[in-house]
Amino acid sequence: MPIFVVEVMPKPEILDPQGKAVSGALSRLGHKQFSGVRIGKRFEITVDGPVTPATLSEVENIAREILSNQVIEDVVSITEVSA
Amino acid sequence: MPIFVVEVMPKPEILDPQGKAVSGALSRLGHKQFSGVRIGKRFEITVDGPVTPATLSEVENIAREILSNQVIEDVVSITEVSA
Repeated sequence: MPIFVVEVMPKPEILDPQGKAVSGALSRLGHKQFSGVRIGKRFEITVDGPVTPATLSEVENIAREILSNQVIEDVVSITEVSA
Repeated sequence: MPIFVVEVMPKPEILDPQGKAVSGALSRLGHKQFSGVRIGKRFEITVDGPVTPATLSEVENIAREILSNQVIEDVVSITEVSA
């Protein structure tokens, strides 16, 4: 069945304390080569039935309105894969 | 600077209550065409300096050992992008 992958990241100007914590952990554990980590979300949405252009625009709406908070997050990609 | 994108998803056999909740919300909101949602994480790791094959294998280790819990999660992709 077709699957849409939607990726959401915090906006660049928004602090990401969870990412900061991982970044600090990496450096404490000896991984000195990395200067920053940011953490976002990855959604896999399974579509029932065939994908039409209307489906894609519906997924775009869902990504913007439901899966992300446009005040603090950006939808960075929407891709279709099949499983 | 080069950025590695690491994507982590819950293993298929693991329940994903957060995804179930979003899936239920979609159907309540009239988006009936979607049969399931699963939610994972997307990490952006910024590399200081050039990327060598050693960097990639270090990122693979970090993804497996630090960014994901191998009991319940799979690392589904590691890709390099440049910013």
